[in-house]
Amino acid sequence: MTDARTTLFGVIGDPIAHSLSPVMQSYFIKEFGLNAVYVAFHVKVDRLTDAVAGMRALGIAGLNVTVPHKEAVLAAVDRLSDEVRQLGAANTLKLENGTVSAHVTDPYGFIESLGEKKDRFNGARVLLLGAGGAARSVCWAAARLGVAEIILHDIDAAKSVALVERCRAFGIPRATLLSDLQVPLGQVISETPIVINATPIGMHPYDNRSPIETFSAVDRGHFFYDLVYNPAQTLFLRSAAERGAETQNGLQMLIFQGLESMRIWTGLPLHLTAFQLQELTSLLTKKLESHG
Amino acid sequence: MTDARTTLFGVIGDPIAHSLSPVMQSYFIKEFGLNAVYVAFHVKVDRLTDAVAGMRALGIAGLNVTVPHKEAVLAAVDRLSDEVRQLGAANTLKLENGTVSAHVTDPYGFIESLGEKKDRFNGARVLLLGAGGAARSVCWAAARLGVAEIILHDIDAAKSVALVERCRAFGIPRATLLSDLQVPLGQVISETPIVINATPIGMHPYDNRSPIETFSAVDRGHFFYDLVYNPAQTLFLRSAAERGAETQNGLQMLIFQGLESMRIWTGLPLHLTAFQLQELTSLLTKKLESHG
Repeated sequence: MTDARTTLFGVIGDPIAHSLSPVMQSYFIKEFGLNAVYVAFHVKVDRLTDAVAGMRALGIAGLNVTVPHKEAVLAAVDRLSDEVRQLGAANTLKLENGTVSAHVTDPYGFIESLGEKKDRFNGARVLLLGAGGAARSVCWAAARLGVAEIILHDIDAAKSVALVERCRAFGIPRATLLSDLQVPLGQVISETPIVINATPIGMHPYDNRSPIETFSAVDRGHFFYDLVYNPAQTLFLRSAAERGAETQNGLQMLIFQGLESMRIWTGLPLHLTAFQLQELTSLLTKKLESHG
Repeated sequence: MTDARTTLFGVIGDPIAHSLSPVMQSYFIKEFGLNAVYVAFHVKVDRLTDAVAGMRALGIAGLNVTVPHKEAVLAAVDRLSDEVRQLGAANTLKLENGTVSAHVTDPYGFIESLGEKKDRFNGARVLLLGAGGAARSVCWAAARLGVAEIILHDIDAAKSVALVERCRAFGIPRATLLSDLQVPLGQVISETPIVINATPIGMHPYDNRSPIETFSAVDRGHFFYDLVYNPAQTLFLRSAAERGAETQNGLQMLIFQGLESMRIWTGLPLHLTAFQLQELTSLLTKKLESHG
């Protein structure tokens, strides 16, 4: 039950009908005892500016921003965080004293999702598949984690080149296009302990696709991370796991980017216990399964 | 817990921090099993147009409108109901297919709050104190109820004259200013079975005030209605009750105008059982008491 002091949060996107954010943020609201509700707003591209003006006029305390608004929203807000300026994208808006500021929590979500595996990134070589917004966040996070070298591949060559340049700007010592290496993929993988999929390839309903086909060089020393979380185990992760690699899907990144948004909105040092993380993971997994 | 399909309703006003609408509408949402939430939006006068544009852009399904926006909001919407056009005020906005329509449920709330006492209005003479927006809604309802004559009084003579004219336009056979009658108030009351307070006089924290001081002519045949509901029993109602009159405060009008808004938004024929009405009344009464 709400009252006149209940705080409203939400997410804007198009489409939005299958967003997990309302279920996830409602879990945070309940567990942290906040007087707040979180809803999904279906906002078309041509209504984005009105939506942000409406946020100001209605006093909506916080909004998440998802596809296709993450870049366009920068022009509609009053202030950008340093990270947003560097990444050129935002996923979190906060209203304070009539001013809307834009933040990005995806890279923090990626880092926090790694838990103790974070240490494996320090000084490591990483193969990153994809050069879109999600890949950009991973590169920013990789710089923070002390990654020594990123090898990039995307079907869009121009985007790949642009992200290589960004990687250098973020402070990653070496950033190279996979195609420039002129080395077979199997050999690259055998020399690269961390492989990350930041493309949508393999996402439901295309469960039988994978961003790479070559897994013969994968062994127990590898860590494969797929930002996709639906299905929970993509063909990419399954193939790597079969060769003994450690794997992780994108669900915890989703959870921790959402938690970081709630920290920004409330200013509270919110933390999930291991039990809460497990409970929320199974809640979201059930929700995904019910979508079919 | 919300999900991506949860419908958002709310109320816009300034001030709004003490609105009972979120608690009341949350009760409806729970009892009628709707997947919806209802929140309060603090909207300043200079943000009203942006707030309605934001309603469109964000796809907010329904908004109640309260002081000071009930008249100004007409200029910001796409369509007015017949009642809104007649009353010049709205308290309910509905978004459908990108179009915002304005409705007014206060007069329906007044009528439904009367229950079986509705019949006492048919052919009756009514003394109405106040000539503001609430009084206007009562006049419109009185016309529907077949009132034969309204005697009006407000400290603002110009507003009183304007409302007398409106009463005639609504179809009430006779509408007169109390001051034009040149008859002592006690005598008017003795010849008028229904007396309604539509001024804010007596509202908390001014509990010891009353819109009239003369109660000597009041007897068991009278029905006194006070649109004020905080305190539950105003000096006006208490004084009339002490002389044997039947009395009613404004809480049920609040409830039924809100229910009518929810009917408009959902298109459902929602009805409260006697038990639900009692439960909601005591919930709202408790809420009022907790505000002090």
